[in-house]
Amino acid sequence: MADSRSSVQSPCAACKLLRRRCVIDCIFAPYFPADQTLMFSSVHKIFGASNVSKMLQELPENKRWDAVRSLVYEANARIEDPVYGCVGVIFLLQQEVVRLQTQLMQAQAEIMRLQVQGWKPGMITSGIRKLDNFHEEPGNTCFTKEVIHQSIDTASGVDMLFR
Amino acid sequence: MADSRSSVQSPCAACKLLRRRCVIDCIFAPYFPADQTLMFSSVHKIFGASNVSKMLQELPENKRWDAVRSLVYEANARIEDPVYGCVGVIFLLQQEVVRLQTQLMQAQAEIMRLQVQGWKPGMITSGIRKLDNFHEEPGNTCFTKEVIHQSIDTASGVDMLFR
Repeated sequence: MADSRSSVQSPCAACKLLRRRCVIDCIFAPYFPADQTLMFSSVHKIFGASNVSKMLQELPENKRWDAVRSLVYEANARIEDPVYGCVGVIFLLQQEVVRLQTQLMQAQAEIMRLQVQGWKPGMITSGIRKLDNFHEEPGNTCFTKEVIHQSIDTASGVDMLFR
Repeated sequence: MADSRSSVQSPCAACKLLRRRCVIDCIFAPYFPADQTLMFSSVHKIFGASNVSKMLQELPENKRWDAVRSLVYEANARIEDPVYGCVGVIFLLQQEVVRLQTQLMQAQAEIMRLQVQGWKPGMITSGIRKLDNFHEEPGNTCFTKEVIHQSIDTASGVDMLFR
């Protein structure tokens, strides 16, 4: 019977890319099957195979799938945007949260005013128009590289991220 | 006169940690001064010095500072949360955006109803109460590791991140 160091028939994507023998207990094999070379090459390019292997080994098995998927997401974000990576997405989402909180407070104030003053024609129209515009604004959840860079540049660099 | 390969008097944090000679045009020196060994050790642990060096070399000089800071942020997030890293923060911020959008739409509907129906005592009170609660909910912008894991577990794993 083959021991745990024996090579398997079809090497995983990692071993294929690294041109090494894929052993039965290969740390990468469960998460990077043979047809996922692109997925492995992304994490290898950004984190390095050795670091990914170490990170996975330090985690319990039931957490490794989630770790692999978040590493792949992070690596792809860094390849797509070599300056900010997925930190650029965090920055834009933080801006979006602040913007929505402000709009919500405005709406809350509008409701309060109605409660206190009652309905008077024309008084609310401007508030409604402001809130309606929100749904017409582009890019609320999907951020392109250009939008991120433009937005971070506008905010005087990456300093905004680390306040 | 010393050429660009000569070693400098005080090695940068990277060369100190890697125990190598720090040359005058060292790629790390401008961003990891001698007293920032912890900052360098984080990015080295997660990305590897060689990968960081490659990433910086591929960028124009005026973008390298931002890249270093986003890499340090990302590395620290991964050290703090080895399963999700800063992808966990993205997930929570996305949830927060959806929550705020929902609340905003509710508020918008409330204002519309007032505009159409006019003020009737008791009709708006429940809406106001709901909106008031928003400001009392904890952790809107600062997410702990526990909150992220609990939240991702509740949402049936990391699948939610990649829809």
